[in-house]
Amino acid sequence: MAGTESKKQSAEKKPKSGAKPQQSGGKKKEVKKETGLGLTNRKAENFGEWYSEVVVNGEMIEYYDISGCYILRPWSMSIWEILQAFFDPEIKKMKIKNCYFPVFVSPGVLEKEKDHVEGFAPEVAWVTKSGNSDLEIPIAIRPTSETVMYPYYSKWIRGHRDLPLKLNQWCNVVRWEFSNPTPFIRSREFLWQEGHTAFATKEEADTEVLEILELYRRIYEEYLAVPVIKGKKSELEKFAGGLYTTSVEAFIPNTGRGIQGATSHCLGQNFAKMFEINYENEKGEKAMVWQNSWAYSTRTIGVMVMVHGDDKGLVLPPKVASVQVIVIPVPYKDADTQGIFDACSATVSMLCEAGIRAESDSRDNYSPGWKYSQWEMKGVPLRIEIGPKDLANKQVRAVRRDTGAKIDIANAGLVEEIKKLLDSIQQNLFDVATQKRDECIQIIHTWDEFVQALNQKKMILAPWCDEKDVEVDVKARTKGEMGAAKTLCSPFDQPELPEGTTCFASGKPAKKWSYWGRSY
Amino acid sequence: MAGTESKKQSAEKKPKSGAKPQQSGGKKKEVKKETGLGLTNRKAENFGEWYSEVVVNGEMIEYYDISGCYILRPWSMSIWEILQAFFDPEIKKMKIKNCYFPVFVSPGVLEKEKDHVEGFAPEVAWVTKSGNSDLEIPIAIRPTSETVMYPYYSKWIRGHRDLPLKLNQWCNVVRWEFSNPTPFIRSREFLWQEGHTAFATKEEADTEVLEILELYRRIYEEYLAVPVIKGKKSELEKFAGGLYTTSVEAFIPNTGRGIQGATSHCLGQNFAKMFEINYENEKGEKAMVWQNSWAYSTRTIGVMVMVHGDDKGLVLPPKVASVQVIVIPVPYKDADTQGIFDACSATVSMLCEAGIRAESDSRDNYSPGWKYSQWEMKGVPLRIEIGPKDLANKQVRAVRRDTGAKIDIANAGLVEEIKKLLDSIQQNLFDVATQKRDECIQIIHTWDEFVQALNQKKMILAPWCDEKDVEVDVKARTKGEMGAAKTLCSPFDQPELPEGTTCFASGKPAKKWSYWGRSY
Repeated sequence: MAGTESKKQSAEKKPKSGAKPQQSGGKKKEVKKETGLGLTNRKAENFGEWYSEVVVNGEMIEYYDISGCYILRPWSMSIWEILQAFFDPEIKKMKIKNCYFPVFVSPGVLEKEKDHVEGFAPEVAWVTKSGNSDLEIPIAIRPTSETVMYPYYSKWIRGHRDLPLKLNQWCNVVRWEFSNPTPFIRSREFLWQEGHTAFATKEEADTEVLEILELYRRIYEEYLAVPVIKGKKSELEKFAGGLYTTSVEAFIPNTGRGIQGATSHCLGQNFAKMFEINYENEKGEKAMVWQNSWAYSTRTIGVMVMVHGDDKGLVLPPKVASVQVIVIPVPYKDADTQGIFDACSATVSMLCEAGIRAESDSRDNYSPGWKYSQWEMKGVPLRIEIGPKDLANKQVRAVRRDTGAKIDIANAGLVEEIKKLLDSIQQNLFDVATQKRDECIQIIHTWDEFVQALNQKKMILAPWCDEKDVEVDVKARTKGEMGAAKTLCSPFDQPELPEGTTCFASGKPAKKWSYWGRSY
Repeated sequence: MAGTESKKQSAEKKPKSGAKPQQSGGKKKEVKKETGLGLTNRKAENFGEWYSEVVVNGEMIEYYDISGCYILRPWSMSIWEILQAFFDPEIKKMKIKNCYFPVFVSPGVLEKEKDHVEGFAPEVAWVTKSGNSDLEIPIAIRPTSETVMYPYYSKWIRGHRDLPLKLNQWCNVVRWEFSNPTPFIRSREFLWQEGHTAFATKEEADTEVLEILELYRRIYEEYLAVPVIKGKKSELEKFAGGLYTTSVEAFIPNTGRGIQGATSHCLGQNFAKMFEINYENEKGEKAMVWQNSWAYSTRTIGVMVMVHGDDKGLVLPPKVASVQVIVIPVPYKDADTQGIFDACSATVSMLCEAGIRAESDSRDNYSPGWKYSQWEMKGVPLRIEIGPKDLANKQVRAVRRDTGAKIDIANAGLVEEIKKLLDSIQQNLFDVATQKRDECIQIIHTWDEFVQALNQKKMILAPWCDEKDVEVDVKARTKGEMGAAKTLCSPFDQPELPEGTTCFASGKPAKKWSYWGRSY
């Protein structure tokens, strides 16, 4: 496979090593001689290549020798950990408990829910050998854990007092996809959390679906500074085997594609039926549980990179940046170099004590300019420069990654100013992203308008009859090199739908507004 | 496989469902009617069966339909999370960063280090299919990640400024073992952390090996209240492909077996050579890195269960118990039931506010006695009972899980007293375990003494010539149904070795004291 795989990796837009600052000049050369910082691709011109290059040069990802698998380096892993540190306590407040189910599934169980297995079967990886021996029956690697967990839900849930049962696990899952592997966005193995809950009533399940969806919105909007739209998926796009699916949907203006950010499913009673998850209710009657499952994955990080990154590299929102402030000494000729380095250390200490994640870059084999470029590539939200003049004036110079604005800040009151600046960067990233996203939203009423908007890479809001066949038809009619259009979601926040409004695609009476577009 | 697997599970001492309180009386029966709490096996009489029963009835583990795989339920997962919450910040202080490498390894890389692959090859699980298609070349699931990671260490490390490189990951690994699967102790998939570090000098590597080992000691002794011995593994028992291995070794008095608690390996330069992990040193010369790897796994939890558990169930040390105090209302006839329930809630609130993990059990379908048994089964360190007399006297009754001692505590000053009691339980568990372990340690000098001590299930401390062939020979001579004896470790804390002391097995001059015994 090695040969084949490496060919596939080219198709993955694996950046050429010449483009990497960590690589230029050959692997074992002296670090000092490195040049060639910066990206060879531009976001506006060559988005796919730009993305592959920025995640590698920003040291988030290393391409791996198995296609579709990627190494999460500390620079991205720390973002994942920050999101975890938000989400995990939130679900614990909701009395959801963590557990861990095996990575392996036996085929009998996997195939129990027909719609579900049809959705996942083509992508399932199978273990057939251990050491040199063949297994008697192949064992699947979980693509998701409904069928792994629910036989045990059946065992554990017997009376109404066993409900609700609310479990979550943080784990890896494997989906052996062949289409267009992309770091974070579409990979054969990824990290996620998956919550699986069972309730006595549909009302409780419905309520939880939305509570979780709100946490997902907060991950995107409050942490990753990425605007998302909450809504319900169409029948065609909902989770295989579930009752209904809600999601947060993001949009990538450069490619004009929507991207499903995270999903919170109500499974209804379908899995309960297949896996016999029954209980005795308060009246002593046999009843069936209502179930939810919900997940967000490392895809979150990829969406953030796509939305905020620019031609200088990554742009990290302060709330998820493992280094929020990078302090760089700018020595000058016979100026007080030691004093400058000391001031940098003191600044870092002061900021760290105040809970700001700050580091100084005191490497002596790089110029300040080279360091600026490198930390811009890595997306650090704020740079502080300290040179002879700053030392003399008891100030520092702060440079924003998002706007490039330069601000001189007096040492007295530094912490407060930096905190304000970080808040302002976080807010500005969200505002700019929202503005760009909103500029892409187009309301249409007719098929012609739809096709035109699609060609203009819009996120299309259209009145729809909400019929499955019509979505199938729209997909067929828009098929092409760029991929077909489909529904992204029907937003919970529905504009007014005047009586008599017709569906843009079928001409039948419209039932709701839905977002449409190409998607990841 | 389903059929075969379920047969294997019997060999795994999977407890019969009749033995489970959650199961007796048939799955769907009314909860109220359940009886049969308690264990059918005794720790002293039937250790293996007792262990399987206690991890299931204590709700730590559920057996899974694939042999050797187990479900970690919230009751054990919370312990794993508490250990993580200790260890992860400690290694971050050491500037070790978290990352995530793929679960898959290509065969070429896996087989690069000969000794290493020989150690793991028989247990490697292979993915050969995705969906209905055969992969061109099978892909291995990581049994450990040396060969996954080190090709990239070679890529990332070029100059001395790239050193040290210190990464860690929290993940699952798979070792498809066929011998005696046991929950936590020996399972086909388990959770662990694996640290992988590279240094310019052997001295730095040596230092880190011991720093990590000290963290492992603290996990066992400070958190799990399990005494361990720090030492070095023999040449025969060291990590496949490494230079030397250090470990913390625990001992299970009931079975007379040692158990490797966690390992911290110095890999030397062997992997560096195979994977070409070179760098240019300060003099501009090409040099090779020194590497370590180190890991602890969910095995930690199993060791704790084996050491502290008793015939009533689990016994959890307060520091790792997700519920440290269970508060149980004891209503009596026409007494003020509401007042009792209110007092329970108030007590829980007070304790929780003080940072104690307390819960009340206000279920109305179980008697207080039933609840006592259930929480004893689950190993909660301290039970608080509140009845009419306690209410009248403004006190509570506390009952220790470790000693069964009952203490009346006045409501005034409750928090302080409970804190003291929890500390005392933690210390007592460690002290009792240490005493029991120490009673099993036997110093011997001759082969006859060795054999006798082995038959008495001792942890044997013996003067040894430290020759590989002699250990091979001892293994051969002690082979039998119970398994052969081998070295556990040479303790860092060496008793005096008078000149002229001879090896118990070979009669050659002894070089060191080593622990020997049967082991897990």
